Amino acid sequence: MTKPCRIALLGVGTVGGGVADLLARNGEDIESRTGIRFEIACALARNRERAAKRLGGNIAVESDWRRIFSEHEFDIAVELIGGETDACESMLAAFARNKPVVTANKALLATRGGEILASAAKGAAGIYFEAAVAGCIPAIRLLKGALAGDRIRHIRGIINGTCNYMLTRMRTDGMSSSDALAEAQQLGYAEADPTLDVDGLDAAHKAVIMAWLAFGTPLTMNNIAVTGVRTIAAKEIEYAAEFGFCLKLLANVELIEEAVSIWVSPALVADNHTLAQVEGSMNAVQAKADAAGELSLIGAGAGAGPTASAVVSDLVECATDLACNRVPVMPPENSRKVLAAEMFNCQSYLRVPAMDKPGVMARATGVLADLDISIEAVRQPESDSGAKTDVVFLLHETSWQNLHKACKMLAGLDDVTDWPVLLPIAVPHTEKK
Amino acid sequence: MTKPCRIALLGVGTVGGGVADLLARNGEDIESRTGIRFEIACALARNRERAAKRLGGNIAVESDWRRIFSEHEFDIAVELIGGETDACESMLAAFARNKPVVTANKALLATRGGEILASAAKGAAGIYFEAAVAGCIPAIRLLKGALAGDRIRHIRGIINGTCNYMLTRMRTDGMSSSDALAEAQQLGYAEADPTLDVDGLDAAHKAVIMAWLAFGTPLTMNNIAVTGVRTIAAKEIEYAAEFGFCLKLLANVELIEEAVSIWVSPALVADNHTLAQVEGSMNAVQAKADAAGELSLIGAGAGAGPTASAVVSDLVECATDLACNRVPVMPPENSRKVLAAEMFNCQSYLRVPAMDKPGVMARATGVLADLDISIEAVRQPESDSGAKTDVVFLLHETSWQNLHKACKMLAGLDDVTDWPVLLPIAVPHTEKK
Repeated sequence: MTKPCRIALLGVGTVGGGVADLLARNGEDIESRTGIRFEIACALARNRERAAKRLGGNIAVESDWRRIFSEHEFDIAVELIGGETDACESMLAAFARNKPVVTANKALLATRGGEILASAAKGAAGIYFEAAVAGCIPAIRLLKGALAGDRIRHIRGIINGTCNYMLTRMRTDGMSSSDALAEAQQLGYAEADPTLDVDGLDAAHKAVIMAWLAFGTPLTMNNIAVTGVRTIAAKEIEYAAEFGFCLKLLANVELIEEAVSIWVSPALVADNHTLAQVEGSMNAVQAKADAAGELSLIGAGAGAGPTASAVVSDLVECATDLACNRVPVMPPENSRKVLAAEMFNCQSYLRVPAMDKPGVMARATGVLADLDISIEAVRQPESDSGAKTDVVFLLHETSWQNLHKACKMLAGLDDVTDWPVLLPIAVPHTEKK
Repeated sequence: MTKPCRIALLGVGTVGGGVADLLARNGEDIESRTGIRFEIACALARNRERAAKRLGGNIAVESDWRRIFSEHEFDIAVELIGGETDACESMLAAFARNKPVVTANKALLATRGGEILASAAKGAAGIYFEAAVAGCIPAIRLLKGALAGDRIRHIRGIINGTCNYMLTRMRTDGMSSSDALAEAQQLGYAEADPTLDVDGLDAAHKAVIMAWLAFGTPLTMNNIAVTGVRTIAAKEIEYAAEFGFCLKLLANVELIEEAVSIWVSPALVADNHTLAQVEGSMNAVQAKADAAGELSLIGAGAGAGPTASAVVSDLVECATDLACNRVPVMPPENSRKVLAAEMFNCQSYLRVPAMDKPGVMARATGVLADLDISIEAVRQPESDSGAKTDVVFLLHETSWQNLHKACKMLAGLDDVTDWPVLLPIAVPHTEKK
């Protein structure tokens, strides 16, 4: 009988429970294919009794992570605690004992990644985090493995299922963003506190991890411009549709003259593009590399099954590495510049809320002309509210900085009633599918 | 300075040249990220002078693969010779010397895979073949790695760029299949002898490799029903479009009650499905697994850049394995039954060419009713040719065997002028995107 690979399962919630289920269901199959026999040696859970019942068998459950390390023997720690303090401390404790860690904790990697990687390196222990980005979509394997011989230029994706679900419902059923959020919460797609998701921070965490893997840019949440979907109005989706676009919360990481540009924002995507077809809680990651061209990966970005599938695939990789004393190489930090948040160019969508008076479009277009911003299309949709209207522009490529200046000047016009809404066009109609 | 990892580059054609270019361009970057420095130690080419010029430097070029083994030292053999005899013999020679092989040779793996794998196992040497299936799409890594902890149920894909290019042109420009093929050849998308591509054999080779990786079913071209696109008429595409479908050459591998069903055929795909958006020479691979759900990968399936990118990613993996004396585990053969070619059920498209006489539709539907085949929709498009018409059916799910029986009976009817055209509906409109 094969010597088992012993797992410390830190966290027996939705994902942790899913991991235990998957190992129970596929353990034999995994052993016959890989020669690795996994065994959950111990587990961490706040409610020990419930967890023990969930896991079955004679698995020891502790409620303090320190006891996992003082009382039990194991080969791999699977960190599914979430949050910051306990998750981080237990990871560092594992590395201090030269134990590798499999984790799905994107927030922790994005905010304290430097410290964690240094600690892993010091312990000569591996860290595996496929489940941290886009559920079962092998985004990490793509960047680390499949494109290892290539030069990645651009990564973008729909990497928050809650926001994508909301935007999909808003488009298909004309819901408001708050109603769509309430529904997502009811269906279990959104957390009780949806801040991380809805405000774009969760997508930003994942973008930071991908930027680091692809470009060696140190893990940090600085320099990343983040806009969420909380304030997206139903009319934005309607107007965008009239121009042949849909709205997606996109994370975008790209090299611009060897510097890294990174942002998360609701953005316009041409209706016939692959990304536009990614609906509901699905996720997508696209990478463009010099030799390979564009690769698109689409799949479930969250949920017990997909996330557990990614965790167990990491367990297999980790155990394989352990068997030959290998520690996965992490990209060396480099001195690549990270562009300040507003230093990128793009085509854009601009809605200017204004009084329905003669000459308002002329004055607005005058502002744009003064800033050398050229207009691809402009519409003034009929308004029900009589006195108020919107002037909606599609603008040719210009700098984001310049566009902010335009917003400021437009907001200062007499007939403009509110701050303009500015959104990047991430996938123009001219982009080849 | 790092000790170099020495490559024997067997074949300096489009892909081999692309590999050399990629290593020249990204070599430093690869070394800084992975610690591996690649060096082409020797090369094999029929035209030694041209190859030496193409490779530059002082790389020794041989025209007989035996001299590669007798005269040179290397760590990894990259087999890009193509064809059968020399490719296979040089691979076996490498394994006999305990040298790992990276290859893009799908035909060889699909037809002589058993022998090759046995030889690799005997030599305790690895074999890496990401480039053999769907160019830069990491299909092999998906099946071997990303879904290693999951249970795969179904794989399907658009995995022949030539056929997809032809079908796309036929739809968008009403071309005949022979004109579309001539254009594909002119553009370099199709070989001078397009048999392997157009008749579906290339897709079948790749399907056989994926079936083996996913299900452990031994590599073989037996038991696989293969239909290509050579005889597809423009009107099939037109009629399918009227029902809201497009036509794609699909490879389909799935578990049906634990037995493996595998076929390659032009098939109908609902217009709004992800696979329908995969146009021109692009490829797509979809895998469905128990926990992960459905994953779709889309990218360039051929060409020097994408294929070289996959080869070099394999080189990185191979060199990493070499450094720790690891040989990748191949799925153990199992005793899973492979279903005979016609043992699957599906919805289908059936066109019955007939004389435009009263009662012909009644007689045709009578035949279907006798066989318990129920009809979802039927159309009799107006015909220009006066006396001749088509009766086009969409049929509810039934066995392929039963459908063949129906074709035979329909062909025997007095007013039916030609053998009916039968195509599976791979993605019905009811399938969730």
